[in-house]
Amino acid sequence: MHIRGGIDLGGTKIQAVIVDHEHRVLGEMRTSTPHEGGPSDVAATMAATLGEAAKLAGVETSALLGVGVGSPGFVDARNGTVARAGNLPRWQEPFHLAAALSEALGAPVELGNDVGVALDGESFLGAGRPYDSFVGVFWGTGIGGGVILHHQRWLGRGAAGELGHMVIKRNGARCPCGRRGCVEAYAGRRAMEARARRDVERGEKTELFDIMEKKGRTQLSAGVFAKALEKHDRYTEWLIERALKALGAGLASACTLLDVEAIVVGGGLGVRLGQPYAEKIRDAMLPHLFTPDRPPAIHVAELGDRAGAIGASLLVPGAKGENSPARRERNAASRGR
Amino acid sequence: MHIRGGIDLGGTKIQAVIVDHEHRVLGEMRTSTPHEGGPSDVAATMAATLGEAAKLAGVETSALLGVGVGSPGFVDARNGTVARAGNLPRWQEPFHLAAALSEALGAPVELGNDVGVALDGESFLGAGRPYDSFVGVFWGTGIGGGVILHHQRWLGRGAAGELGHMVIKRNGARCPCGRRGCVEAYAGRRAMEARARRDVERGEKTELFDIMEKKGRTQLSAGVFAKALEKHDRYTEWLIERALKALGAGLASACTLLDVEAIVVGGGLGVRLGQPYAEKIRDAMLPHLFTPDRPPAIHVAELGDRAGAIGASLLVPGAKGENSPARRERNAASRGR
Repeated sequence: MHIRGGIDLGGTKIQAVIVDHEHRVLGEMRTSTPHEGGPSDVAATMAATLGEAAKLAGVETSALLGVGVGSPGFVDARNGTVARAGNLPRWQEPFHLAAALSEALGAPVELGNDVGVALDGESFLGAGRPYDSFVGVFWGTGIGGGVILHHQRWLGRGAAGELGHMVIKRNGARCPCGRRGCVEAYAGRRAMEARARRDVERGEKTELFDIMEKKGRTQLSAGVFAKALEKHDRYTEWLIERALKALGAGLASACTLLDVEAIVVGGGLGVRLGQPYAEKIRDAMLPHLFTPDRPPAIHVAELGDRAGAIGASLLVPGAKGENSPARRERNAASRGR
Repeated sequence: MHIRGGIDLGGTKIQAVIVDHEHRVLGEMRTSTPHEGGPSDVAATMAATLGEAAKLAGVETSALLGVGVGSPGFVDARNGTVARAGNLPRWQEPFHLAAALSEALGAPVELGNDVGVALDGESFLGAGRPYDSFVGVFWGTGIGGGVILHHQRWLGRGAAGELGHMVIKRNGARCPCGRRGCVEAYAGRRAMEARARRDVERGEKTELFDIMEKKGRTQLSAGVFAKALEKHDRYTEWLIERALKALGAGLASACTLLDVEAIVVGGGLGVRLGQPYAEKIRDAMLPHLFTPDRPPAIHVAELGDRAGAIGASLLVPGAKGENSPARRERNAASRGR
């Protein structure tokens, strides 16, 4: 049987899926990412989470064809290591994550970049499937992104796709990355939260933090923003409008450069706010777009918050049916363009 | 003999070359673009210009393997027509330029987009040759651009590469395209000239217009800007610095998205101001670049102001040696990446 595992390792949660040969989810589980300890504790939690998902699917992890992992930080897929994962506990030095997981699970493990695998998931199985080329934007804590050209991720020298750090306002707002005027400085959840906290200290009125407390949160999560928008909180409307304009300008620049067919919006905020807000992003692009008469299509990520785990499962060799006649034909056709 | 022609049709000049099978220029000629009449007058001037170049090369135009043309406006290569060439006299409707030239020259004619053929020239024969991927920026009257990925121009849905209309300042300066805050609004020669004229009317001091008059020009050409910089005209230094910052921010965004290996700077101003200013552009990119520790290489277009005509000659089928074993091998290698 061709059954695979996929794990999405995030700064706040670990999500695991078991999928069959047609990429159907047979079992899934999510847990909180440990905030104490170190990489081997995180690896143990990842293995346990996948184990639970496998139990729900009725398989042993050792029977899996393989397990793919989408990880933050610097991923060295060849050596099976992850380094400099800033949001994970004491994870600066390269850690042999593939080997640690493989030993715990009894199955081969492949590593990939978190944003990359989610984008591959959308390209191969989700909203990006009909398109030869699209730009993916992950609107979450930060702004991640990626570029799919001829159905393949364009990596450049390895760091391509950082849509969140395109400049939309020279000398503009300070970004968490330290530069000024990046898209993320206006649209990243973390940057928006920092701005809201400063504004509230200065006497601004908003229900954001009351909603946060009622939800038992310590951060302005996507759900908190969504609730405040539902309640027509004026400050939140202003903050989100500002984010939409930044995303619109950045995506318009990307489209002016690449003239892709579509945009796929994922990430915590992107998925939570959904298609109406994706369309607001498209509207915010129009004043800046070089081809406003034929804007790209815009879709919310179809795999939703499972994109990372399902996309990771595609890292397992053979998962995409590379040797199937249909796939070979498609590859040949896209090369010929 | 494998001898080809190439014509670069510009708003101010028509440039023609005759090249041999190793792309060496055997003869060349340039004339002013007619400002009166219509498309057929322009076509007649183009044919005459190529005829003069052929005479210098000692060949009959009817003996040419083919002639390539780089044209502004909307080029329909398949039908051999050009439409909406705004800078050319009465050239809105599609005109059968390929047929008109072919009849006058007695040789087959291929059409291409002006920026595109210049970029192909740099990619295949010029500064871009060592690179698998680069961004070309044509710093001239407007800001043209293009993206080369795996040695091929990325066209998207047909309009990719418009680097000049990426947004670098939301709600910023008005661009000749009608939008706000585009790179071209700050860095295009035409936009800079408009700004200088307004500033002089308001009492700003600059030698720009004296230099223009001494050179017998009616516009602030690249040579006028270069002369004013040589003389350390303060206003010109400010205006060019502002242009460099805009180019730097736009190119940084392009690199943050695509992480290409290099940038090739062409166009009237780019070629005239040369490598020292290309390096100033690179320096202006650094504060915005996602990978400032390894910026892309930056080079001035090697084919200089012949890039358009030589690049156009590559449109002739067989010009790139598509069927040579070395070429086939290279194509196979870049597909495999």
